[in-house]
Amino acid sequence: MRTVTVALGSRSYPILIGPGALSKLGTECAAAGLGKRCAVITDTQVGPLYAPAALKALRQAGFDPVLITVPAGEKSKCLKVVSECYDLMAAHRLERKSFVAALGGGVVGDLAGFAAATYLRGIAFVQAPTTLLAQVDSSVGGKVGVNLKSGKNLVGAFHQPRLVLCDLKTLATLPEREFRAGLAEVIKYGVIFDAAFFRSLETNSNQLLRRAPKALTEVVARCCEIKAEVVSQDETETGLRAILNFGHTIGHAIEAIFHYGAYLHGEAISIGQVAAALISNRLSNLPLEDVERIQLLFKRCGLPTHIALRTAQWERLQTAMKLDKKVSGGSVNFVLSERIGAASWGHPVPMDLVHSVLRQLGSRPSGQDVNDTRRHKP
Amino acid sequence: MRTVTVALGSRSYPILIGPGALSKLGTECAAAGLGKRCAVITDTQVGPLYAPAALKALRQAGFDPVLITVPAGEKSKCLKVVSECYDLMAAHRLERKSFVAALGGGVVGDLAGFAAATYLRGIAFVQAPTTLLAQVDSSVGGKVGVNLKSGKNLVGAFHQPRLVLCDLKTLATLPEREFRAGLAEVIKYGVIFDAAFFRSLETNSNQLLRRAPKALTEVVARCCEIKAEVVSQDETETGLRAILNFGHTIGHAIEAIFHYGAYLHGEAISIGQVAAALISNRLSNLPLEDVERIQLLFKRCGLPTHIALRTAQWERLQTAMKLDKKVSGGSVNFVLSERIGAASWGHPVPMDLVHSVLRQLGSRPSGQDVNDTRRHKP
Repeated sequence: MRTVTVALGSRSYPILIGPGALSKLGTECAAAGLGKRCAVITDTQVGPLYAPAALKALRQAGFDPVLITVPAGEKSKCLKVVSECYDLMAAHRLERKSFVAALGGGVVGDLAGFAAATYLRGIAFVQAPTTLLAQVDSSVGGKVGVNLKSGKNLVGAFHQPRLVLCDLKTLATLPEREFRAGLAEVIKYGVIFDAAFFRSLETNSNQLLRRAPKALTEVVARCCEIKAEVVSQDETETGLRAILNFGHTIGHAIEAIFHYGAYLHGEAISIGQVAAALISNRLSNLPLEDVERIQLLFKRCGLPTHIALRTAQWERLQTAMKLDKKVSGGSVNFVLSERIGAASWGHPVPMDLVHSVLRQLGSRPSGQDVNDTRRHKP
Repeated sequence: MRTVTVALGSRSYPILIGPGALSKLGTECAAAGLGKRCAVITDTQVGPLYAPAALKALRQAGFDPVLITVPAGEKSKCLKVVSECYDLMAAHRLERKSFVAALGGGVVGDLAGFAAATYLRGIAFVQAPTTLLAQVDSSVGGKVGVNLKSGKNLVGAFHQPRLVLCDLKTLATLPEREFRAGLAEVIKYGVIFDAAFFRSLETNSNQLLRRAPKALTEVVARCCEIKAEVVSQDETETGLRAILNFGHTIGHAIEAIFHYGAYLHGEAISIGQVAAALISNRLSNLPLEDVERIQLLFKRCGLPTHIALRTAQWERLQTAMKLDKKVSGGSVNFVLSERIGAASWGHPVPMDLVHSVLRQLGSRPSGQDVNDTRRHKP
């Protein structure tokens, strides 16, 4: 079992990474001094697979959990579902010392975390992420929230978990498409922070795609280390933390205009990162060779790197980007990379350049894109 | 204009108290360095009276406000109405540097504050309270939130305002019943913190009930000082701040079982405080003479001090108390007073004693209760 610490003073917490971590849920919550009553929030996909083990671990350690199961999928990340969670939490009489454990992917973690952040003005929260994306990204750092019709994550809070348990065994049951989507965040850490890690991904992408345990452990632990480092330096994103949004301005907008249905988050930010790399080439001297390596690694991992937008879709994309939280004073700010392993934030990018880059991504080279099924049908 | 400061380090803020304070909304927001785009959230009762002045003050100082009007009444303090506010805030493209100004009573302040606390993971927030209750209590201290069906304020956050403007002129239009309800919180400060202030209320209750400007200024300023002092010492209610809940455990439960309709908050906590005083007499040696002075002052201010509960209502009241946020380890904790001017928190009170005291409040002395209209019709 590997442990990575997120250093945030009195709110520091450990991330435990390894096969079988979930079986430690009860003992670790007890060690953290959490109250007896709790809620395990999961979804219809993950619940049947892992909720029995989670509940058993909690009960054996003397906890009194209620299981709350929400429909699987991004559509659950909304106020209506949070509201249903609150009602079930109140019915189970959760108190100030109670806690919420999120068992699932990013949607469950964000939703359960927001419920914990706001129930009784904030109760404790534990993350047990079961997808690659949640283990390397969304479960760490305390960003929680839900979507509005007008945009993703527009409502939320900063609420750090007390504990994160990344059980690598849960990745074995992850559908191929979701596993690959998680790799989009993995690659991001290489692009923005660690050139050696990027190179190791280029070298080991096959083992990773086969989900070889050793490769997985190394990758999840390194991603958590990078995220912990960035979050420790800038918890509420007043500066550095913004680099974690590389590829997300366009990515979030793609998700929004296709109503969070056609693209998984990882797929949308895969396109977003390739676009951000092309913009970086024009505005911050990212070498074309680096752009090509980035694009190639996404492709090798089976992630989409092209998107064909009709005019009306481009218009909607523009509107969605302007609604993004990263807007300040009306201009859309991007995270750009200067070279693989380094990124900086707060670059205003003219809409014309975004448009031109996306047009470039619309003309797909024949026979190279592994990702036909991901394209939105016109 | 009087200024009281809430001292919370980098999150300190001023409370400006005086007739006409609302006209300073724009200049004060500019002085606080807030962003241009903002939302003024008000209700159907207060909006027609004061929104034009608030919007004018903001526009003259260069701000771009959108007006959001919610239905007047406690029923608006719910997730559905917050959700509508979010949508309008997104449509007006509020950004991270934008802010929300609450213009109204406690319901509007709590609702608008929760919207500000959670929109884009938290944007700035300004309070312009227009009721006595909001000016002396709910607008100061950062507690924001909404009700669930199963209980009051079960969902919320701590989100300090950047500025509070108490315009005493707005109290002139307050309906008599609401004004008197606000006095219940005023009296509370005397009971829990300041014996001299309690005595001055006994002496000056007539001037106060006539809403004499000088009496109002003194009272609002002293209440804000006490609240600021308590909140500065214990922002998130890990200890001392709990004394502000004197009378609220029973009060909140009364509101809940009558579905937030029959009793105003101030009326419910008036009964709750009399009950807490009787319990204090039994458990913490509050002299009977003090209990009587407390009861008499509430009566003199036209507030209810009796309640007749049927058995089924008592059962529901018990359930509601157990759902209260102040429950810990299953036992209901009360704030009790040892003498007028002093209170302490965390006293477990047996349900039998609560029941016995409420039965005592159910046998109403004939011809003494000014408050027939407040009783719930069976």
